[in-house]
Amino acid sequence: MTSPLKSIQSPHELRKLSRSELPALAQELRQYILNSVSSTGGHLSSNLGTVELTVALHYVFNTPDDRLIWDVGHQSYAHKILTGRQDQMAGLRQLGGISGFPKRSESDYDAFGTAHSSTSISAAAGMAYAAQLKHEKRIAVAIIGDSAMTGGMAFEAMNHAGTNRTLPLVVVLNDNDMSISPAVGALNRYLARLISSPFYEATKNGVGNVLSILPPLKEFAKRLETQAKGMLVPANIFEEFGFNYIGPIDGHDLDSLVPTLENIKRMSLEGDGPQFLHVVTKKGKGYPQAEEDPILYHGPGKFDPLVGIKKSAPASKPTFTQVFGQWLCDKAAADERLIGITPAMCEGSGMGNFQRQFPTRYHDVGIAEQHAVTFAGGLACEGLKPVVAIYSTFLQRGYDQLIHDIALQDLPVVFAIDRAGLVGADGATHAGSFDIAYMRCIPNLLVMTPSDENEMRLLLNTAYHSQHPSAVRYPRGSGTGVQITDSLEPVPLGKAVIRRHSSLENAKKIAVLAFGTLLQQCIATSESLDLTLVDMRFVKPLDEELLKELALTHRGFVTIEDGVIAGGAGSAVQEFFNRENIQVNLLQLGLPDAFIDHGDVALLMAQCGLDQSGIEKAIRRHFIA
Amino acid sequence: MTSPLKSIQSPHELRKLSRSELPALAQELRQYILNSVSSTGGHLSSNLGTVELTVALHYVFNTPDDRLIWDVGHQSYAHKILTGRQDQMAGLRQLGGISGFPKRSESDYDAFGTAHSSTSISAAAGMAYAAQLKHEKRIAVAIIGDSAMTGGMAFEAMNHAGTNRTLPLVVVLNDNDMSISPAVGALNRYLARLISSPFYEATKNGVGNVLSILPPLKEFAKRLETQAKGMLVPANIFEEFGFNYIGPIDGHDLDSLVPTLENIKRMSLEGDGPQFLHVVTKKGKGYPQAEEDPILYHGPGKFDPLVGIKKSAPASKPTFTQVFGQWLCDKAAADERLIGITPAMCEGSGMGNFQRQFPTRYHDVGIAEQHAVTFAGGLACEGLKPVVAIYSTFLQRGYDQLIHDIALQDLPVVFAIDRAGLVGADGATHAGSFDIAYMRCIPNLLVMTPSDENEMRLLLNTAYHSQHPSAVRYPRGSGTGVQITDSLEPVPLGKAVIRRHSSLENAKKIAVLAFGTLLQQCIATSESLDLTLVDMRFVKPLDEELLKELALTHRGFVTIEDGVIAGGAGSAVQEFFNRENIQVNLLQLGLPDAFIDHGDVALLMAQCGLDQSGIEKAIRRHFIA
Repeated sequence: MTSPLKSIQSPHELRKLSRSELPALAQELRQYILNSVSSTGGHLSSNLGTVELTVALHYVFNTPDDRLIWDVGHQSYAHKILTGRQDQMAGLRQLGGISGFPKRSESDYDAFGTAHSSTSISAAAGMAYAAQLKHEKRIAVAIIGDSAMTGGMAFEAMNHAGTNRTLPLVVVLNDNDMSISPAVGALNRYLARLISSPFYEATKNGVGNVLSILPPLKEFAKRLETQAKGMLVPANIFEEFGFNYIGPIDGHDLDSLVPTLENIKRMSLEGDGPQFLHVVTKKGKGYPQAEEDPILYHGPGKFDPLVGIKKSAPASKPTFTQVFGQWLCDKAAADERLIGITPAMCEGSGMGNFQRQFPTRYHDVGIAEQHAVTFAGGLACEGLKPVVAIYSTFLQRGYDQLIHDIALQDLPVVFAIDRAGLVGADGATHAGSFDIAYMRCIPNLLVMTPSDENEMRLLLNTAYHSQHPSAVRYPRGSGTGVQITDSLEPVPLGKAVIRRHSSLENAKKIAVLAFGTLLQQCIATSESLDLTLVDMRFVKPLDEELLKELALTHRGFVTIEDGVIAGGAGSAVQEFFNRENIQVNLLQLGLPDAFIDHGDVALLMAQCGLDQSGIEKAIRRHFIA
Repeated sequence: MTSPLKSIQSPHELRKLSRSELPALAQELRQYILNSVSSTGGHLSSNLGTVELTVALHYVFNTPDDRLIWDVGHQSYAHKILTGRQDQMAGLRQLGGISGFPKRSESDYDAFGTAHSSTSISAAAGMAYAAQLKHEKRIAVAIIGDSAMTGGMAFEAMNHAGTNRTLPLVVVLNDNDMSISPAVGALNRYLARLISSPFYEATKNGVGNVLSILPPLKEFAKRLETQAKGMLVPANIFEEFGFNYIGPIDGHDLDSLVPTLENIKRMSLEGDGPQFLHVVTKKGKGYPQAEEDPILYHGPGKFDPLVGIKKSAPASKPTFTQVFGQWLCDKAAADERLIGITPAMCEGSGMGNFQRQFPTRYHDVGIAEQHAVTFAGGLACEGLKPVVAIYSTFLQRGYDQLIHDIALQDLPVVFAIDRAGLVGADGATHAGSFDIAYMRCIPNLLVMTPSDENEMRLLLNTAYHSQHPSAVRYPRGSGTGVQITDSLEPVPLGKAVIRRHSSLENAKKIAVLAFGTLLQQCIATSESLDLTLVDMRFVKPLDEELLKELALTHRGFVTIEDGVIAGGAGSAVQEFFNRENIQVNLLQLGLPDAFIDHGDVALLMAQCGLDQSGIEKAIRRHFIA
């Protein structure tokens, strides 16, 4: 059997194929993705679900002149393979390899870098307006999932773009099979109703899609289409937003996709304005295990595709996420006021057990960080105790709400901030590097940085009982394996813990002030260099009393944190000393002022000088050399 | 004539009135607001437009047990007057007086503090969920304007809340007359179509509203209502989101409002789930001048209501906003790639002339800061030069987009950040106190702090030509009156300007490093204390070369900025010295770690020790005393 895929180094080769050759190509591409992802790890379900759609888009549209913007972007592997990166898939998401998301610096075909949700329509709208203004005949296509459509930003973009009657913008809604992923929110229910319409059933059963069988007379075609939709899909919110709605069609049927996209392309180039294509796909399509459990196969590590993912024995060291999940259940059992909130990250945030045990006190609000934060504020006003579980990088989406709705009103909402610091394979877009800096400047907000998973539990208790807005940040991955207390009692607010006292004379003493889990990297060095080592626990409020005491007996300080130095915890320490007019010699260690690409976290941290030897070197260089 | 208003110290007295007494009360209330606002300054048009709606809401709902959440909140004056704050209106928005927005600490009737747009449905949803969980018979009512509905957060909230079939949540859409405010976005067009329906015309012409004439039999009523809507208002996006849509009705007709709200209240208490009432009002209603020009009367200063606002001669010192607006036009004339973007703040951001001169390059995207930022990113990808004019406090809404879509991709977008620092009468919710801290930690982003309005123009040129994402922040209000250059050329990136050299011996020399307009407050002191004074211009990149030089010849440094000290520009200076292992004695002056209430900016700054004498005192205390 020939291999059409090998001959395709760019979409130009793809476009030379006849339409009848496309299904075989798609089949090979699907197998290639399965083999590739199972050997490197990466996103699987979403990529298996968009194989035919990707083939059809590159077949029909004149990429890279026409722009494809992949919302979230974890469904872009087929796109990467078809656009000259087939051989680089072996290095996917690894240090020095290609990214798991579209990236402008990687390829001309990656029109816009994505990873966070719901940005694609805004970016595509900008590109479409630019084409219009510059009189360039090109189309901007946003491909967005049904979950990403729940992000408010997507509606902001639709609201703006929908008023331009000739904008060369196409939105492809990639609607994953509702029967598998639990529907969240009213919009998803709405989409499910559209899918259950006879119109969609007709196309699915091989009657062919309405557009492809229309005569070429445009006006007639449009009228007929409108009539058909009017009969079968009575109300349509996308049309109310000014888009020409087409669909739903089967996103795995190339005989539907190609002619429909060709029609859309023609209408768009003829100035018919914003087009909205509703495509239905199945996550994990073609790999039965992934179709069965698309969440398990959402972002697996390496596995044997013939066997599937083996349920491995639980790791001996639980992850921070798991310890948080356990704390949430324990606390909820003890206090019926606790409400758990996640913006569409139930499993990722370790809330599975909580959801099952306390369904009425669990809220998955969809990909809607802004709403998640202010919704928590409303609950807090009524005496409930909301805990918002959120990734550091996604809290950036709710930043104004954190300031304006929570902190300003001093509402007691707990933010359990996962994925603080570097996150590894997902790279710069997902790194939680900025949270200490962007939270520390907010009045009333307490900021805590546990040094291990048990400290996290203790500080969550303190946060929960503080009566103020509070944030506990912790990294992705396993803890140290420390014994976990079952305590639900708070530890004292704003009090650090001295882990080691230097035995040197005062004129030589140096104190390491550790904020967060990098404390672990400082233990050996504090022994070998005979340093004082402090688990600061709190960025805000600082243990000012302790800092004053230490300043009397130490010649120098080192602050260390797994966040950016700029404005971080080290600067909080320095600001305190400056306010007190205490001159100190302070070495600030933390992440540099740069976006750090994907790769193994340990390797990246070493590159940043934040592994054990790097830290020791930095201390020697600053204070001893 | 009796004065019903005087007898009303709370809604309890209001509810004792008969319905026939309400119109006279509303009339008196309207006059009271007009007199009050014209003597204090404040928001007028929005408050005149919501008099009847406010009376009806407090008359029907059992406030404060039922919760009213006023979106944006600048329409809450009638609410304040009816809830015991009649006599405090004379101190509105002044130091020590009541706030111009709802504020939880001010009254039990202020269920949620608002000011930024589109938060009300989220907060009300939280309260409604809490009532449901606690089995408390209360209703949460969000009152939201049509512009605020364009904020994506409102949709996120609708999407979440709409799935709960018994949620005691009411959303009142306060739809201001479309014919006056220019419609922005597809949603507003949609609302205009709803208003133009025969159903609304019927109620407006005195036929009475459908609900009020329904028999009390609930099921029958609902069926009839559905039929009526089905006939007259065919498709409705709010119903698609799971809300029971009612309206549109005339928001100035108490005979429509009261019975409709009574029906809604009954349905809500009976567990009929989320209700959506579409009310049409007129901004400035009842005061012809304000009806004529609601934008002029949006937030006026003091004026004689018998005469109206007199067009005063332009101030001799132009505002920063005006100088920005002029720069934007000049630059746009010189470079056709320039695109101006505002999230619904055309006039406030000084873009009126730009809009008129360059309509195809002007985008008001609605209250949609997230979209504004990423839309600019899309334009920048295509070689255009977007300038996003945005208030400091509202950029918080686009924070993730600034990091993830702009800075990470190093896209050359200029952010012209108005209302940096304290803003005066609008208070803590609108203060631009955090931007230096939250922007400085973002890689690739250039951050500039002009010391006067001409410096602003120079730095805007530098930002525009930098080929990187860049931010120029400047305060509300007048500049110094300095001569404005007509130059469109950049000044050197990252280079500070020494404004004065200290003549003291090195061991006594102190350098003031000023970031932004507080430099003006340091000039006299730098003379009297013989200090070196530097206009730093750039927070990022810092003029590191100069800092090193100054460290060799100065015994101490003072940094000063009109933003929070925590993570601010002063900490940037300190981080640099720490990195270079240069010990310095640094006094950091800036805003404290607190939300600062409304009041005269000069008074507030003096309270913060940031007026001329406060600064001098702080320097003396730190270095001399």
